Amino acid sequence: MIIVSHRGPYSFTRDADGSFVARRGGGGIVSSLLPLGASRPDLTWLAAAMTADDTEAMAAGAGDGLALGVRLVDLDPDLHHLHYNVVANQVLWFLFHGLFDRTRRPVFDIAFRAAWEAYAEVNERFAEAAADLAPPGETVLVQDFQLMLVPGMLRARRPDLRIAHFTHIPFCSADDMRMLPTDVARDLCASLASGPAGFHTHRWAAQYHDTARAVLGPGVSVRPPFVASLGPDIAALAAVADSAEGRTATRAVEDAAADRLVVARTDRIEPSKNIVRGFLAYDRLLEARPGLRGRVVFLASVYPSRQDLDEYARYTAEINEVVARVNDRWGTRDWHPVILDDSDHFPTSLAVLRRSDVLLVNPLRDGLNLVAKEGPACNRRDGVLCLSTEAGAYEELRDAAVTVHPYDIEQTAGALDDALTLPLDERATRASHLRRLATARTPADWLGDLVRHAGE
Amino acid sequence: MIIVSHRGPYSFTRDADGSFVARRGGGGIVSSLLPLGASRPDLTWLAAAMTADDTEAMAAGAGDGLALGVRLVDLDPDLHHLHYNVVANQVLWFLFHGLFDRTRRPVFDIAFRAAWEAYAEVNERFAEAAADLAPPGETVLVQDFQLMLVPGMLRARRPDLRIAHFTHIPFCSADDMRMLPTDVARDLCASLASGPAGFHTHRWAAQYHDTARAVLGPGVSVRPPFVASLGPDIAALAAVADSAEGRTATRAVEDAAADRLVVARTDRIEPSKNIVRGFLAYDRLLEARPGLRGRVVFLASVYPSRQDLDEYARYTAEINEVVARVNDRWGTRDWHPVILDDSDHFPTSLAVLRRSDVLLVNPLRDGLNLVAKEGPACNRRDGVLCLSTEAGAYEELRDAAVTVHPYDIEQTAGALDDALTLPLDERATRASHLRRLATARTPADWLGDLVRHAGE
Repeated sequence: MIIVSHRGPYSFTRDADGSFVARRGGGGIVSSLLPLGASRPDLTWLAAAMTADDTEAMAAGAGDGLALGVRLVDLDPDLHHLHYNVVANQVLWFLFHGLFDRTRRPVFDIAFRAAWEAYAEVNERFAEAAADLAPPGETVLVQDFQLMLVPGMLRARRPDLRIAHFTHIPFCSADDMRMLPTDVARDLCASLASGPAGFHTHRWAAQYHDTARAVLGPGVSVRPPFVASLGPDIAALAAVADSAEGRTATRAVEDAAADRLVVARTDRIEPSKNIVRGFLAYDRLLEARPGLRGRVVFLASVYPSRQDLDEYARYTAEINEVVARVNDRWGTRDWHPVILDDSDHFPTSLAVLRRSDVLLVNPLRDGLNLVAKEGPACNRRDGVLCLSTEAGAYEELRDAAVTVHPYDIEQTAGALDDALTLPLDERATRASHLRRLATARTPADWLGDLVRHAGE
Repeated sequence: MIIVSHRGPYSFTRDADGSFVARRGGGGIVSSLLPLGASRPDLTWLAAAMTADDTEAMAAGAGDGLALGVRLVDLDPDLHHLHYNVVANQVLWFLFHGLFDRTRRPVFDIAFRAAWEAYAEVNERFAEAAADLAPPGETVLVQDFQLMLVPGMLRARRPDLRIAHFTHIPFCSADDMRMLPTDVARDLCASLASGPAGFHTHRWAAQYHDTARAVLGPGVSVRPPFVASLGPDIAALAAVADSAEGRTATRAVEDAAADRLVVARTDRIEPSKNIVRGFLAYDRLLEARPGLRGRVVFLASVYPSRQDLDEYARYTAEINEVVARVNDRWGTRDWHPVILDDSDHFPTSLAVLRRSDVLLVNPLRDGLNLVAKEGPACNRRDGVLCLSTEAGAYEELRDAAVTVHPYDIEQTAGALDDALTLPLDERATRASHLRRLATARTPADWLGDLVRHAGE
C-alpha cells in the first residue's frame, strides 16, 4: 500500500556530529497514520522533501532504519512555494473554508496562472513517483487538497492501480467553486470525479458531489463519494499522557487551573478556527454572569502557524489583542481570566484537554476537527463539549454536545454558560455518551475504509 | 395600489424662502417606478421619512401637489440608524452579496440583538402604516431587503390584502443564511414564505426557495417564488439624453473620448460592483496589447456612497489607488488611460453609456444590474457588453454579451480584448440582438407581474 501526502511522517535534521536524525512530522494525517504504518510492513509513504536536509538524509540512506518505508519527492523550492503557499494554502484552503474577503481576494492574474502551473507540475511529480513505485494492482491512497490532481494523473499513467483520494478539509458549493478560473475548477473536479473520493462527513461528500456535477456538466459522470470519518488514537494519547513529559505537563496545567472551572481550547492559530469570537463569547459570559468571575479560567493552547503570510500574522495579533482586553477588563491580582499558551507542545495541549470542564470547538468551517473527538476521548472530568454546527465532527457528536453557532456571540456565551452549569449527573451521562460517539471510529477503521473504497 | 419601499420617490428640502421643494429620490426602485406612478392615479407610495425636512414637509402638506400619493413613516433617528445602517446595509446587504470577510464579520453580539429589534420595529411600523392606509382587498407591493419582515407582519394584521414582496438583490444559500442567528434567519424566511415572493432571476428565486425550505424545515410550506425581471425605461432615458443638460453632457463626453475607443462603466462605489478588479483587467489589457495604448480610454462614472461606513471609504481609496497606478504606468502627456468621474450626475453617466464601444459590468454578485440593460438600450455605437456571470441580468443577456469571470483578471482582460477587436459586422449583429434582449421587458411589465402575483 502506498500513502501519498504532501507532508511525510518524518522530517530530518542534522545532529551536532553531522549525522541525520528523523523527527516525527506534524499535522493530523501523520499523527493518525504513523501508529498504523508501524504495524503494516507493506506500507510505503510518499511525500515531499520539505527541506534540503530531507533530501540529503534520504540520499544518505537515513530512511532505511525507519519503522515504515518512506520515499520523498524532491522539488525545486520556488516551484514548491508556488504549489504549496500560493495555490494550496492561499487559494484552495481559503476557498474550501469560505475565508476569502471577496472584495479583495482572490485575484486570478497572470501570476496565479504561473502558480497554478506549478501546482499541476508538483502533482504530476507525485503521480510520476507513485507510478514508478507501485507494483501492479497496488492500492494508492492520495491525501488532501495539496494533491487534488494526482488521482487523475496517476490513473492516466497506471490504470491498473487502485487509487482513492481523501479530502480532510471541507468542500465548497458550486457557486463558490466557480470563483476559480473555469479550467482550474474543472481540472480539480475532474481528477476527483474519475474515481473514489472520500470525505469525513456526509455534508462535505454531498457538497462535493453536487459541485462536481455542476462544474463538470451533464456529459461527465461523477462517481458517488464515500464517507469515512477519522477517530482518535486512544492508545497514543494515553502513552503521551503517561510519559514523564505528559505527567509534568499535567502538573503544570493543574497548577494553572488551581481549583477553578476550566474552559479550554486547543487549536492552531487559523482564521477558520474562530478563536477571536470564542474569546468575545467568554468576555460576554463574564459580563452576564458575575458569579463566574474568579471561579473560571480559559486555558487556551493556541499556537502560531504560517506566520510568513500576512493574514496569519494579522490574525495572531487580533487574538493577542482580544485576550489582553478580556484580561484587562476582568482580571484581578490573583486571577487571569485567560491563560494563553502558544508553545505548540502536544503534552501540554493534551493535559489541557484532560483537565477541561468545558471544551470550546467553534470553527467557522472545519473538515472534521479531531480535537472535538480527542478531547472527550481523554478527558478526566466529565467535560462538556461546546461544538460548532460547522465542524465536520458535529454530524457524529451533535447528540451529546452543546451546540454552538459560530457567528453568534450571544448564543456561544449562553452555550458556555449552559455547559458550566449542567447538573453533575447530566454531565456524567452526557460525557459517557460523548465518549462513546467520539471513540466509535479508530484510525484503523478509517484506513480500512479507504483501502476498501480504493478497490471498488 | 400601495407600494411600500424604504426610500420614497421624493425627498424634501427647504427653499431659500423657507418653503419646501420636492426632489426626485435616488435608487433604482424609484427611477423605475416613478414614471409608472404618474400614470396610475390609484397608486400610493409608502416610504420612510429620511430627514426632519421630509417629516415637516409632509406635515405642511407638501405631498399634496405631487404627481402621485406619498405617505411617509416617521422614525426615530436612532431606531432608523440601527434598522438601516446596521442591519440592512451592514448585515443583510453583505450577506446576500457574499461580501463578509468572515474571519472578522459578522459578529452577532448583544449590540446586534438591539439592532435586530430595531429592524423588526421599523418593519412593524411600516406594516402598521400600510394596514391603516389600505382599503379592503387592496394590493400592497413590498420592496426589498430593508422590509423583509413586512409581508408576514402585514398579513397577520390584514389577511384581506393582496401582498407581494419583491427582492431586488441576490438571495443567498442555506449555508450562508445560517450565518445569521437562528431566529433571525427563520423570521426573515418565514415572512417571505408566507406569500408571493419575487426575484429578478430564476437563479435567485431558486436559491431563495431552497434556502427558505432548509431554514424553515419540513413542517413549514414555502410558496414557490415568482420571477419578474425589470427592464429600462427607454422613454425616460431618451428624455434625459435629449434635454439641454443631456446634450451638454454628451459634448463633454465626446471631448473626453476624442476619437478613441471607449471602455465604460457606471456604478455606485460598492464592493460587489468589483470596480478594482475591472481596472486591474484593463491594466493587464494595456500590458498585453501594446497596440491599444493611446487608442483606448476607460471612462468610469463611479460615484461614492455610504462613505460614513469604513468599508466603503476604504474601497473608494483602493479604487483611487489602482486608477493612479494605471495612469502612472501607461499614461502620456496626451493620454490618460482612465478618466474617473465621481460626480453622480445621471446625464453624464448616460452620455458615457451612449458613447461607449465596450461596457464593462463585472460584479461579484448582483440582483439584476439595470445598467447592463440601460447601456445597450441607449448606446449609439453598436457597443459590446462585457457581462459578469454573477450579474442577475446575465440570465437574460448571455447570448448577446461577452462573458466575464469576475475574479479572473486574465479572463476579463481577454474579454475586453475580444470586445474591442470584434469585426464591425459582428458588432452590429450582436448589438441589435443585445438591444432586443435588453429592452424585452419594461417597468410596466414588471409592475404588472407584481400585481398579478400579489393577487394569486
